[in-house]
Amino acid sequence: MSTSYDQNNIFTKIIAGDLPSHKIYEDDVCISILDIMPESRGHVLVIPKKGARNLIDVDPNDLAELMKRVQKIAVAVKISMNADGLLLRQANEEVAGQTVYHLHFHLIPCYAGKRRSRHGSVEVSNEDLAEIADHIKKLL
Amino acid sequence: MSTSYDQNNIFTKIIAGDLPSHKIYEDDVCISILDIMPESRGHVLVIPKKGARNLIDVDPNDLAELMKRVQKIAVAVKISMNADGLLLRQANEEVAGQTVYHLHFHLIPCYAGKRRSRHGSVEVSNEDLAEIADHIKKLL
Repeated sequence: MSTSYDQNNIFTKIIAGDLPSHKIYEDDVCISILDIMPESRGHVLVIPKKGARNLIDVDPNDLAELMKRVQKIAVAVKISMNADGLLLRQANEEVAGQTVYHLHFHLIPCYAGKRRSRHGSVEVSNEDLAEIADHIKKLL
Repeated sequence: MSTSYDQNNIFTKIIAGDLPSHKIYEDDVCISILDIMPESRGHVLVIPKKGARNLIDVDPNDLAELMKRVQKIAVAVKISMNADGLLLRQANEEVAGQTVYHLHFHLIPCYAGKRRSRHGSVEVSNEDLAEIADHIKKLL
């Protein structure tokens, strides 16, 4: 099993603009997009532009800068979605649930009295995702 | 519902040494201890010494410094426990699963062919935890 970074992945294509996404944030360090198979309404990913496989190999200083964005986006998601809580998750390797081998953080809004869906069990329409993205973007 | 930081929590007592723990790492920024109700063998917590309720209110620069430790400890846990993967999780507010209102990151080793336990469903003996802590500490 390889554990190195391969830039041939879906996130580098999204970063390059070669694949569409519902982007809520972008700067020199990262992009943030809606997860198209969300576990809850407003589930976003924060993805560094500089390639790393996951938490194990990312440059510590790059990680530090990235986390400032993760926090800023977490606050914007929680407030804009009127969420009661928020889960941060980051998976390393397949056994942990990593499916794209380019570092990314999940930010999953949690709502009182509402269970989260299994990742990938619910597909949301493009129109709905676009509306949510527009809503969150107002706070970023 | 209050969403401010209250220093009267179990982690400040552990940091102060007023409550026992199985510590694997300590520096000026954080401590890392074994979770006493682990979801898998080698499940650890990384806890900043400076109080913050969670990801929402932590100072961004403190978070950045903390994450360098989270990464360093993640690598040590994965290697020392011979884990196939590792899950990072951080919960904000009760609905997301936060039970102690002092920021902390879970690092949960994942092993091929082995399901993780529910948090709190398995108690591990002190002797076993001490042995695991000693083992991880060798890499830190």
